[in-house]
Amino acid sequence: MLDLFFKPKSVAVVGVSRSTHKIGRVIFDNLARNFKGPVYPINPQAEVIGGHTCYPSVKMIPETPELVVIATPAQTVPEIVRESAKEGCKAAIVISAGFSEVGRKNLEEEVLKARGKMRILGPNVMGIFDAHSNFDTIFNPRHRQSRPPKGNIAFVSQSGALGAAVLDWASMEGIGISKFLSIGNRADVDEVDILNGLEHDSDTNSIAVYLEGTHRGRELYEKLRETSKKKPVAIIKAGKTSAGAKAVMSHTASLAGEREVWSGMFEQAGAIEASEIDELFDIAKALSTQPLPKGSRIQIVTDGGGFGVMCTDEIVEQGLQLAQLSQKTVKAVKSFKEIPPHATIGNPIDLTGDSTSAMYQASLNAVLSDPGVDAVVVVVLFQIPSLEPRIVDVIKDAAHRFGKPIVVCCTGGEFTQVHRKLIEKAGIPTYPTTYRAVRALSALVRYAEIKKRK
Amino acid sequence: MLDLFFKPKSVAVVGVSRSTHKIGRVIFDNLARNFKGPVYPINPQAEVIGGHTCYPSVKMIPETPELVVIATPAQTVPEIVRESAKEGCKAAIVISAGFSEVGRKNLEEEVLKARGKMRILGPNVMGIFDAHSNFDTIFNPRHRQSRPPKGNIAFVSQSGALGAAVLDWASMEGIGISKFLSIGNRADVDEVDILNGLEHDSDTNSIAVYLEGTHRGRELYEKLRETSKKKPVAIIKAGKTSAGAKAVMSHTASLAGEREVWSGMFEQAGAIEASEIDELFDIAKALSTQPLPKGSRIQIVTDGGGFGVMCTDEIVEQGLQLAQLSQKTVKAVKSFKEIPPHATIGNPIDLTGDSTSAMYQASLNAVLSDPGVDAVVVVVLFQIPSLEPRIVDVIKDAAHRFGKPIVVCCTGGEFTQVHRKLIEKAGIPTYPTTYRAVRALSALVRYAEIKKRK
Repeated sequence: MLDLFFKPKSVAVVGVSRSTHKIGRVIFDNLARNFKGPVYPINPQAEVIGGHTCYPSVKMIPETPELVVIATPAQTVPEIVRESAKEGCKAAIVISAGFSEVGRKNLEEEVLKARGKMRILGPNVMGIFDAHSNFDTIFNPRHRQSRPPKGNIAFVSQSGALGAAVLDWASMEGIGISKFLSIGNRADVDEVDILNGLEHDSDTNSIAVYLEGTHRGRELYEKLRETSKKKPVAIIKAGKTSAGAKAVMSHTASLAGEREVWSGMFEQAGAIEASEIDELFDIAKALSTQPLPKGSRIQIVTDGGGFGVMCTDEIVEQGLQLAQLSQKTVKAVKSFKEIPPHATIGNPIDLTGDSTSAMYQASLNAVLSDPGVDAVVVVVLFQIPSLEPRIVDVIKDAAHRFGKPIVVCCTGGEFTQVHRKLIEKAGIPTYPTTYRAVRALSALVRYAEIKKRK
Repeated sequence: MLDLFFKPKSVAVVGVSRSTHKIGRVIFDNLARNFKGPVYPINPQAEVIGGHTCYPSVKMIPETPELVVIATPAQTVPEIVRESAKEGCKAAIVISAGFSEVGRKNLEEEVLKARGKMRILGPNVMGIFDAHSNFDTIFNPRHRQSRPPKGNIAFVSQSGALGAAVLDWASMEGIGISKFLSIGNRADVDEVDILNGLEHDSDTNSIAVYLEGTHRGRELYEKLRETSKKKPVAIIKAGKTSAGAKAVMSHTASLAGEREVWSGMFEQAGAIEASEIDELFDIAKALSTQPLPKGSRIQIVTDGGGFGVMCTDEIVEQGLQLAQLSQKTVKAVKSFKEIPPHATIGNPIDLTGDSTSAMYQASLNAVLSDPGVDAVVVVVLFQIPSLEPRIVDVIKDAAHRFGKPIVVCCTGGEFTQVHRKLIEKAGIPTYPTTYRAVRALSALVRYAEIKKRK
């Protein structure tokens, strides 16, 4: 079903303006630039737009487009859908807003009746994006909203604007995405259908969902349970308070409900609930890149004592355990001649502000070989003068050699960001605070438990 | 007392190496570049370093330096301190590590005995930094660790590396700082002395503290209580768990204790406790820039429905109230002709993805004039095509005209960051998530209550 939207042979965009900043035009220009098949602009008032022949309607196009993207005023949508269905189009993305979210439930039902065998995504959506094929119907111009690099996290957002803002942020952070779908009012295709598609999507390792509500509670639960057996689903539920639920009604017209009911449902289904947007991605990127830990015994390796202390607190407070290094491991680290006498070899291992990449290498090799260690948090401060850029390779090597999960915390400015992005790009999740790094590890431990119980 | 460290007439740096990446040398080079008075390098093995005449010891310098910065091996420190005290130096910053934090309590006591009338900051510190005068003894090179811009937050860190990493991050985020002090083992000058100094520092509006423990519990409580009457103190206590407390012992050799005891003490003293590093600064920057709200009734103005929903939840969950706009205000906003029919005028005000800066202006003016609104969260997504750059001025104007606190949430990549930094620079705190924006507002509301109870 996802292929109907992501892999059409041809596309028509209805509502392509002469003005380059209007949404239909932005979508058309992006497709014309990136999509390999034919793209047809529809505008009854124009003959040529941006050098492309323009058509007055879908039926006037010489071939039948497989996908129709509709960005015209709400009241014109049912007729466009009817015509497209009649012509044999397979799917439509209805970008247009002004349906059930503003109380016009009837107009939305008209669209539904008009669709025939076509599948409809929307109305009231931001568009979809595939980072692997670069298929892109998002209506925000690329200079305002960057598109993230290829990766293995699918992101499903019931809110379009929120989805777009988060994609833009993810892009700056270097977080890779497989597919993005804004699902809006979900008149036809909904979160259950999408989860089903992503469950079988080979580009997707983990799924991140921003959800406001559902029309199909039972089916959503079943689908989450089934999908979670195959790949992790991280989910954030907005509209948990009654005031929030009221806000949802005028946003995507879903019934939102009691927070405990939702949390209990996610828990039972084996989905991992996040409560903040950054948490959703913090979790999703660990789940999409790291092997699952055998247990919850965490070792800290750092060059900053304060962060070591914070991290220790957080491991305990988030219900994980501090690994106890074996005598052999401690001896192995201590025997490494470079390590200074004021370093602390325990948990945390604090290599101090005199540390080098060789000290990190010796420590990481030793602790990752220790059977008492299930996962490692590396807190690396790039500000200290003695640390060479080679540390990036040392961390990569350690993450790829031992089959144990590693998360990295590094706090800092431009110099740090350059190094951090190299680590992130190598498939090792990085975080700006120890709190967030430990929270991501905690999700890995939870998902490992969820997998075991099935 | 702070002036002894921040405003010396002359400085000597002991332990200046020929090698430019060694810490004594980094400190000397930074001072030589930025400090207006004379700076003397001390190294008995060199005659000239970096074009500057080198001296074998403090007493061989033609004048008596007011401040001595010591970056030599631990065992040499007592003698250098003794000589400096004898020469009449007023203060010393002991960067050197290897004292009580590694069990060498005796060596630290020797330093203390040797100091005479001199005041000592350290040992085991990263240095200090004044963004207003550019006085800088931080030993991380500037290409690895940026220095933040001028601002009104003082930052006191018991951990040097953590302090430096956070400064570096703050610098990238555009968060302004007044003074930074790394206080390390606090053999002489401690957190109580520093708080006392900052309480009277005219560049400082709010104080952010990273604390691992104290040697003077009672005095710290009294000082926090006194300082909080004049300016807000945000504080994070590391080593709250027993495992964390153990890690503190080998870091800065302080006794850390039960989390509840600490939290209760902060609460009673009127200090605002943070539990994450980013929270510390999220709070501090709101406290240092925004007027205090009269109550806790918060209005949301946004162009992104999803963020509006999240924000609604968070206001309720963090114990604040959703403002109820008066009929008059709702009417005023609705009467603004540009506002589209699918916009929602309530709380949140959702201007939708078609919003313009004029719509924001009309909404902000109306809600800030409403006596039922104590503070506003502006959630502005810069990705939407219709929003012009003028929005930055609209927000600035609104923040400066009504005397009510405003916090801004904007999530996004490069395009967003350009605008976000302009807003931040105008003294309006910005946040990447609604959660963090609301958390900062909540601290403002709490500090307003603390001020009232005194």
